[in-house]
Amino acid sequence: MLSPSFLAHLRTLLPAHCVLNEREDLRPFESDGLAAYRNTPDVVVLPETEAQVAAILELCHAHRVAVVARGAGTGLSAGALPVDGAVLLVLAKLNRIKAIDPLARTAVVEPGVRNLAISEAAAAYNLYYAPDPSSQIACSIGGNVAENSGGVHCLKYGLTVHNIAKLRAWTVDGKLLEIGSDALDAPGYDLLALLTGSEGMLAVITEVTVKLLPRPERAQVVLAAFDDVAKAGAAVGNIIAAGVVPAGLEMMDRLAIQAAEAFVHAGYPMAEALLLCEVDGVNEEVSADIYTVRQVLEASGATEIRTADSEEQRLRFWAGRKAAFPAVGRLAPDYYCMDGTIPRAQLPHVLQRIGALSAEFGLAVANVFHAGDGNLHPLILFDANTPGELERAEDFGGRILELCVEAGGTITGEHGVGLEKIKQMCAQFAAPELTRFHDVKAAFDPERLLNPGKAVPELHRCAEWGAMHVHAGQLPHPELPRF
Amino acid sequence: MLSPSFLAHLRTLLPAHCVLNEREDLRPFESDGLAAYRNTPDVVVLPETEAQVAAILELCHAHRVAVVARGAGTGLSAGALPVDGAVLLVLAKLNRIKAIDPLARTAVVEPGVRNLAISEAAAAYNLYYAPDPSSQIACSIGGNVAENSGGVHCLKYGLTVHNIAKLRAWTVDGKLLEIGSDALDAPGYDLLALLTGSEGMLAVITEVTVKLLPRPERAQVVLAAFDDVAKAGAAVGNIIAAGVVPAGLEMMDRLAIQAAEAFVHAGYPMAEALLLCEVDGVNEEVSADIYTVRQVLEASGATEIRTADSEEQRLRFWAGRKAAFPAVGRLAPDYYCMDGTIPRAQLPHVLQRIGALSAEFGLAVANVFHAGDGNLHPLILFDANTPGELERAEDFGGRILELCVEAGGTITGEHGVGLEKIKQMCAQFAAPELTRFHDVKAAFDPERLLNPGKAVPELHRCAEWGAMHVHAGQLPHPELPRF
Repeated sequence: MLSPSFLAHLRTLLPAHCVLNEREDLRPFESDGLAAYRNTPDVVVLPETEAQVAAILELCHAHRVAVVARGAGTGLSAGALPVDGAVLLVLAKLNRIKAIDPLARTAVVEPGVRNLAISEAAAAYNLYYAPDPSSQIACSIGGNVAENSGGVHCLKYGLTVHNIAKLRAWTVDGKLLEIGSDALDAPGYDLLALLTGSEGMLAVITEVTVKLLPRPERAQVVLAAFDDVAKAGAAVGNIIAAGVVPAGLEMMDRLAIQAAEAFVHAGYPMAEALLLCEVDGVNEEVSADIYTVRQVLEASGATEIRTADSEEQRLRFWAGRKAAFPAVGRLAPDYYCMDGTIPRAQLPHVLQRIGALSAEFGLAVANVFHAGDGNLHPLILFDANTPGELERAEDFGGRILELCVEAGGTITGEHGVGLEKIKQMCAQFAAPELTRFHDVKAAFDPERLLNPGKAVPELHRCAEWGAMHVHAGQLPHPELPRF
Repeated sequence: MLSPSFLAHLRTLLPAHCVLNEREDLRPFESDGLAAYRNTPDVVVLPETEAQVAAILELCHAHRVAVVARGAGTGLSAGALPVDGAVLLVLAKLNRIKAIDPLARTAVVEPGVRNLAISEAAAAYNLYYAPDPSSQIACSIGGNVAENSGGVHCLKYGLTVHNIAKLRAWTVDGKLLEIGSDALDAPGYDLLALLTGSEGMLAVITEVTVKLLPRPERAQVVLAAFDDVAKAGAAVGNIIAAGVVPAGLEMMDRLAIQAAEAFVHAGYPMAEALLLCEVDGVNEEVSADIYTVRQVLEASGATEIRTADSEEQRLRFWAGRKAAFPAVGRLAPDYYCMDGTIPRAQLPHVLQRIGALSAEFGLAVANVFHAGDGNLHPLILFDANTPGELERAEDFGGRILELCVEAGGTITGEHGVGLEKIKQMCAQFAAPELTRFHDVKAAFDPERLLNPGKAVPELHRCAEWGAMHVHAGQLPHPELPRF
């Protein structure tokens, strides 16, 4: 619990409406997008200026109070889950687009700016911001940086880390770090990349300079149906091997197709698997790539191939994919969205193993994912009101992540580790890497005040692997800040 | 000096021909590509296996002996300059290409593999490795990673950090770190990016998994002459603003043009400035881009525009640019190659200021550089045998770097900081950033045994700014490992 004197001091730093600690005001901040994990914050602060952020950090540091930073709260790994006794620092009110420079092809934005709002503002210059998480209408760029978010188009255009140039960030004790540069590269260790994906554990970001790209002259999409998931998986590899760099290459399995079709009537053919392959660029380049993609799909055994013949049809092809998560959500009271990556060549094998695990756990799974990247998003269907089903879904999800590691992949593509995957970090890394992570953390935050207990497990937890289960946001013995 | 007992122990770890400490054997290792800075190493080791690297690190750590890693020795910032009392760890014999995977589009290589050798080996699959430093015939991939090297094509294809997927690296005490992944992304802090560009100060790399790209169907180059350097600088911004992403966009000034023309007879027109703009991709895309580029160049006031009409002519257009450094080298007994970056919009202003500084210092300067990236390479001409000229060239170079910082740029684009630019790090960064660098260093190497004294200055040195001059590889009071 936070002391009344600390709270009184906190209130002197911000306008009254920017500090929340009435029970009903706190409820919206109990969880992020992984709603199965909940914890009521002790206090929520919503600074409106960078100076307020610095003052909050300074005060918390002086009192050794932990700080959990939060953006729009759309994260899917409980990275922004409140921690007992900590201040929840919500950056949503820092939402100005400060500058767009069409010559440098950059935009300078505050962390609370929504991902899509950047592209909307840059459209006046025929530019856009490439990374496009499914949540891009709602998610904010600060959260994108914290989790190194991806999206459909990151196959061609890279993750968040590849699309930012500069950060203003504040250390745990409220000192400014100016990282990166307006030029090609910056000297010294690459702190820009180090902070990107660091899940609020190294510093608090108050400004992001993002790189913008010219909007492609044309985008075109091909849809292909397969009577076998493994064939569709192999087709993904074949497209890449043919030298095409698709702007997006997405896959859905039967359950996901059925759900999407019932929900948005995109006109998908019923099949065991669908691929959506988008290419973009100048007009003739797109035509050439579409020709190649169709040939490869045919040779890979597609039972049906359709090319969108208008922009309206292209958007309809995508509508089913984009609505797939809520569509699958209609099939069961709850679903649990996983996020693992595997080398492309492993797609057929891993999809078959997920099917076998589905039978073993008695829980249905729909697969909707960034196939070109090997970035899986199995959606596990369950009913949290049936005793034991949430635990079963969590165990099934954990097994999928461990399967990704066995296949030479990783436990996250774009959602981060948060609290959700902290156990699987022990499967992903050995002691030397985990030790280095802790040492890097100590270089920024030796007392572990920033988002304590997330992303990197204690070594002793990995040693006690069998006993380590994250359930509904609770570890058996939560990590505490170390003083 | 290293003790005889340490040397004797070292000799038990490697075959006799892999340990050099006779004076004449050490001479080739006195300097890297920045030959004005020299220091004879105490001992050179050339391990042939990863296990030998680990054993050398373990031994050095046990005896608290510093280690300077070195690749092909083509670096230009004295990053591989030997340090007194240290072991020089040369990774040139680890030079196997272990695997090329055309489906994953990756190659697994040892650090001593030459940059160009990767593309040569990948050509069988119609793939190549994009980053292309001017030294790519000779430089090795380990050094590229250590310095985060760029090249002509990094405008479109990114720096080394954007083109690698995985590293095997060894900690200062000889423990293996497996960093990155074969999949899209890796969880945890981004140690892959952190080690890239870390100049041998965090770990020693023994294996690199690089990303390969499909070879573009066609590349085409346009050459444009200008009667004014500032106009050429503005044209660079105009090309980018027109929405073109050139594969390379290079600039040369009058002195560089004359030198190149006299050396390789590329057929360049005499002018105050030349731009070379290359575009690549599928055939029609290239045609469309070339059309746009020519229009922009005309509108920007080019006095002459030529498009290469054959592959042979394209290579001839590039021949002058590629030979520009040695060509300029014929104009004076010595030259000093700088490497700063600036925002593109600052090109006309900064080029004019460099001209003014040239007059002030009484030293000619030729400009040959990656204009699209704003990555300058002024070549300062001097004669080291004229007393005081080396110091004057060094001071002039330092002023150029400080000018880059003032213009919102950085003190290095692709050559690293090494020992050369350690003073200008004080201009680039304030105490909070420098402190964070030291803390990150301590997370990997708390006793500062890896490449001590390079890349990141002590804070007290920045405080004593005026007294800090690096001259011919010597700081007034060299940094020492801290025990």
